[in-house]
Amino acid sequence: MTEPDMDLAHLAHVELLTPDMAGSLGYFSDLLGLEVTETLGNAVYLRGFEEQYHHSLKLTRAAQAGLGHAAWRVRSPAALERKVAALERAGCGGRWMDGEVGHGPAYRFRTPGGHAMEIFWEVDYALTPVGKATPLRNRPQRRPARGIPARRIDHFNLMTADARKDRDFLVDVLGFRERERVDLPDGNLLASFLSVTNLSHDVALVPDPGGMPGRFHHLCLYYTSIQHLFDLADLARERGLRIEAGPGRHGIGGAPFLFMFEPGGNRIELIGDPGYMIFDPAWRTVVWGANDLDVAAAWTGAPMPPSFWEIGTPGDRAVGSGDDPAVSRSLEVQE
Amino acid sequence: MTEPDMDLAHLAHVELLTPDMAGSLGYFSDLLGLEVTETLGNAVYLRGFEEQYHHSLKLTRAAQAGLGHAAWRVRSPAALERKVAALERAGCGGRWMDGEVGHGPAYRFRTPGGHAMEIFWEVDYALTPVGKATPLRNRPQRRPARGIPARRIDHFNLMTADARKDRDFLVDVLGFRERERVDLPDGNLLASFLSVTNLSHDVALVPDPGGMPGRFHHLCLYYTSIQHLFDLADLARERGLRIEAGPGRHGIGGAPFLFMFEPGGNRIELIGDPGYMIFDPAWRTVVWGANDLDVAAAWTGAPMPPSFWEIGTPGDRAVGSGDDPAVSRSLEVQE
Amino acid sequence: MTEPDMDLAHLAHVELLTPDMAGSLGYFSDLLGLEVTETLGNAVYLRGFEEQYHHSLKLTRAAQAGLGHAAWRVRSPAALERKVAALERAGCGGRWMDGEVGHGPAYRFRTPGGHAMEIFWEVDYALTPVGKATPLRNRPQRRPARGIPARRIDHFNLMTADARKDRDFLVDVLGFRERERVDLPDGNLLASFLSVTNLSHDVALVPDPGGMPGRFHHLCLYYTSIQHLFDLADLARERGLRIEAGPGRHGIGGAPFLFMFEPGGNRIELIGDPGYMIFDPAWRTVVWGANDLDVAAAWTGAPMPPSFWEIGTPGDRAVGSGDDPAVSRSLEVQE
Amino acid sequence: MTEPDMDLAHLAHVELLTPDMAGSLGYFSDLLGLEVTETLGNAVYLRGFEEQYHHSLKLTRAAQAGLGHAAWRVRSPAALERKVAALERAGCGGRWMDGEVGHGPAYRFRTPGGHAMEIFWEVDYALTPVGKATPLRNRPQRRPARGIPARRIDHFNLMTADARKDRDFLVDVLGFRERERVDLPDGNLLASFLSVTNLSHDVALVPDPGGMPGRFHHLCLYYTSIQHLFDLADLARERGLRIEAGPGRHGIGGAPFLFMFEPGGNRIELIGDPGYMIFDPAWRTVVWGANDLDVAAAWTGAPMPPSFWEIGTPGDRAVGSGDDPAVSRSLEVQE
Repeated sequence: MTEPDMDLAHLAHVELLTPDMAGSLGYFSDLLGLEVTETLGNAVYLRGFEEQYHHSLKLTRAAQAGLGHAAWRVRSPAALERKVAALERAGCGGRWMDGEVGHGPAYRFRTPGGHAMEIFWEVDYALTPVGKATPLRNRPQRRPARGIPARRIDHFNLMTADARKDRDFLVDVLGFRERERVDLPDGNLLASFLSVTNLSHDVALVPDPGGMPGRFHHLCLYYTSIQHLFDLADLARERGLRIEAGPGRHGIGGAPFLFMFEPGGNRIELIGDPGYMIFDPAWRTVVWGANDLDVAAAWTGAPMPPSFWEIGTPGDRAVGSGDDPAVSRSLEVQE
Repeated sequence: MTEPDMDLAHLAHVELLTPDMAGSLGYFSDLLGLEVTETLGNAVYLRGFEEQYHHSLKLTRAAQAGLGHAAWRVRSPAALERKVAALERAGCGGRWMDGEVGHGPAYRFRTPGGHAMEIFWEVDYALTPVGKATPLRNRPQRRPARGIPARRIDHFNLMTADARKDRDFLVDVLGFRERERVDLPDGNLLASFLSVTNLSHDVALVPDPGGMPGRFHHLCLYYTSIQHLFDLADLARERGLRIEAGPGRHGIGGAPFLFMFEPGGNRIELIGDPGYMIFDPAWRTVVWGANDLDVAAAWTGAPMPPSFWEIGTPGDRAVGSGDDPAVSRSLEVQE
Repeated sequence: MTEPDMDLAHLAHVELLTPDMAGSLGYFSDLLGLEVTETLGNAVYLRGFEEQYHHSLKLTRAAQAGLGHAAWRVRSPAALERKVAALERAGCGGRWMDGEVGHGPAYRFRTPGGHAMEIFWEVDYALTPVGKATPLRNRPQRRPARGIPARRIDHFNLMTADARKDRDFLVDVLGFRERERVDLPDGNLLASFLSVTNLSHDVALVPDPGGMPGRFHHLCLYYTSIQHLFDLADLARERGLRIEAGPGRHGIGGAPFLFMFEPGGNRIELIGDPGYMIFDPAWRTVVWGANDLDVAAAWTGAPMPPSFWEIGTPGDRAVGSGDDPAVSRSLEVQE
Repeated sequence: MTEPDMDLAHLAHVELLTPDMAGSLGYFSDLLGLEVTETLGNAVYLRGFEEQYHHSLKLTRAAQAGLGHAAWRVRSPAALERKVAALERAGCGGRWMDGEVGHGPAYRFRTPGGHAMEIFWEVDYALTPVGKATPLRNRPQRRPARGIPARRIDHFNLMTADARKDRDFLVDVLGFRERERVDLPDGNLLASFLSVTNLSHDVALVPDPGGMPGRFHHLCLYYTSIQHLFDLADLARERGLRIEAGPGRHGIGGAPFLFMFEPGGNRIELIGDPGYMIFDPAWRTVVWGANDLDVAAAWTGAPMPPSFWEIGTPGDRAVGSGDDPAVSRSLEVQE
């Protein structure tokens, strides 16, 4: 048995594109209680009140919603070198980005499915905002008194036309462990849930019904309790935000969920506990059949609505823009 | 910078000694809903309904309560070899144990403070108990319908007369990262919280007011919600079990807690969420001063009672056996 | 303004008919943790661990599922006389029942929609079961350590072909206050929610798509927290019980809900908090339009599935027995 | 048996005196999310987002903290007349107040213990604040997105030197039912919990260790979940507010509690569920012995600290102003 690849440490931040910066910012800052740490040109940087880095979310103005990029922090400088070499060896080489706020040099590349990712080592830590010091020494700042404050980002899901190719890339080149997966009757891969941490997934791959590469399914943020999901849903319903699914509890991963669309058009998941965690270093991938899909997606609660399997960002006019006015509105926003 | 030591993967199981096997078994099986997986001679093996190994808790009949041993699973066979070599190099060499149920060869050693630990690689996975199959594929069995079922073990705390020596051993020899600590005014170490996982601590070191080596402070099990802590407290009060502290929420680690004594006399903690998790591979230890101790121990809720800082197992007649009849009873049970 | 009619005090018990006594008993006793207080002939009497009367639920063997009767306790002996007189004056006179276990003479009558109800004054209080004494003096017994223990019954819903007629009867003859209602576009009444207590409803009237009189929609029991609904759903899914809807939160009344079918075929609701309570003695009925129905039924969570508006007990072969095998199975059980 | 007295319907509002209006307002509006409905002279009127009347809390500038008055809404105009007559008959006659905002003529009187109370019938309903309309038709406004929003006031506790006299007054003259009580070994009454609603208590009487008449113990507001108590405690700790006790769960009434002091110096309780409710019209008072006091006060959680039995508002320099700097500070604020 070869030694396990521990070079990636965790998901450090995600960049979301938004055609409605004011709306997106209101959503993440006022409703989810994220702290704005910097605004620079077309981008706003935010983080949860328990997060230690400069930012975990970057919002960037764009014509369409979608994923800008997702960034992984490696475990050491040597790990960074090893991973860059592995990417180049695999023919997925990218380029060094040097000017980003909040962290040092990052190596940017694209997955086979066309999603932009980065890996980096050096990071800037969060400063305590003026007037927000706390005696709780393991937080960089006080808990906000606005909205329902999310604690941290948790994971994200990508849409892909070839889950197997993306999964193999994440496992073979980047060192992810596949924790759960859904197999098609023909043995092909429908969806895959992978992590480099003790979470059940840091990233997931779900099928894209259209042919557009690089589409984004959702970003997930983390709460303490199912009660927070119900409270957020209450606030969201009254403010006209579109809730897509939940509260419910996933079969895969086991976390209680709420899915909604932020005003920029991206799907956001909120979870109320981490589900089960994985400590076994020889974890055997949990395999679901496609006919288990409803249970796998929603062990507790109503089955996911069709939109969940159809809508991604950037939007595809041909898909999901049916007669649901909320959907239409949300898609209009994106385009 | 040297490469991080990732050889230990996680806390695999804990052995508790009990002078009241019937009482302890009733507590863990009926009240905490653990599944008994095997009974062998003087020992009973149990695990939580979401745990994947043969057992996470071994109860062994003994004259006094206390820790039997705690076992860490390594990340690979090579990691096992490396750690055994490191232990021997450090003069803490032990011996191989080969006959234990539920896992392969384990290397047993003692920490400087006198606590028995093991490391091992090969493990037996849980079998689904007859009649307890579940369509939820990431669990080995159904959720029990008795008591308030704990999901898994989380961490344990040791009492030690020299926290610095034990902390250095765990960090330097075994590869733990120190996540939080409490410093005495003279710069000496009062308490330390360490992990090899993304949890804020897998093991903690707290001071022992007496001079007895190898004493145990508590084992912690994991729930989903603060509600479970209140429900368990309700059941426990009516059944005459002694609750020592909580529900409250720790400053250190941030988990909501309940502390009680199982009938065998060992202190058990239950937590209702994991608190904050640590993903930063260069985590800077959070340092508390001894004058922060109340806040560090109980950020929410009443300060810990004196017994929390005094009682350990095996019990010490000279300590903590004051005029609280519940304490006295619990100590009598042990002896 | 006339003086308010306070003669009815509250819902005292509900009798459910079951063609599967073993299944129903397992559900209510093992899963919902109700205490069996007496078994007599074809009936079993149960109550929640916080309930003070002999029983709040009577299960009676029958060929089909459905409501046996629902019983209201009046506020005084004089109130009983007044209500009997009012019933007789309204042409809804019934007869005195004298031999029931757990309470004194009860006057039984039928509502216009054909549902059997009783009113009574004298009641037997619960005895503490042997070995279940508690130091908590406001409970007759300990909290059970099995299943997810429900605290008490809360309300029930009836299906009716003429909600207006039933509503008027409950208001004019029995003294209920209408708390919320749903109006059809033509001004007719679709559904009505009424109470004599500070709860938002003790009884509700919902439309029956078929023509059968006296059908039952659901009985609701009460929990402390949404967490209990998720825990119960977890247990239920693994034991093959059919969950129909939720967890979600009602618009009407505001309680978080879970709907399922007990093995006998009756729909059972569980709520995780009481929603809002009504203290205003001049409460103005909250009026929803039929086009608000989805929001009114499920403010949080997926809209109610079609079965929710179709299935009642006893079952009607012509309704709801579609291609959902779970539905078919549940209906078969009843017949 | 005489007919039960149902003339009082519920607690409508409480007036608190505050020597620190800015601080108190910040506490109730920003932290507890109450809506300010009117500001007039020395008073600010507020209510919870689910409350239907003009206000449930009146804050009035004063030299010292304490209770201004508490107001009960009667069930009908005739009930108002009956109660005024009963008060005058009992020698507790007061006077009519006609100019208060938010309700019609109120009859003000003093209890034997010297606390000011009012009864009234006519009330003004809340208007929906501009921009805060909601599709949830049973709320006058949206759920606030600030602090941890309390839903409504629940009850209040008074300190008294002669609990028996006050209890008898509330029962005999006003029609309260005594739900629970604590008896002294000599048979005298230590504390009493009474209600006119289905809540376990709308008002409670607790002993005053000093001799000052008319002192106030606490006002209680209502949340949905224990999680809210922990979240509020988190916010409060970081903002330097003094938490006195909890989270825990009362034996009496059974509600989960958190006790803190608002900046004006008044003690505020927050509860996370209503505890058990009382529907039995012939409820037999639950009697605790004084030696049960710890369990009665805190069934779950640490026993109440000494300050809980000592401090009331207005403060008494001779009591409770010991060496706890937080207490001293809070008392300084008042004086």
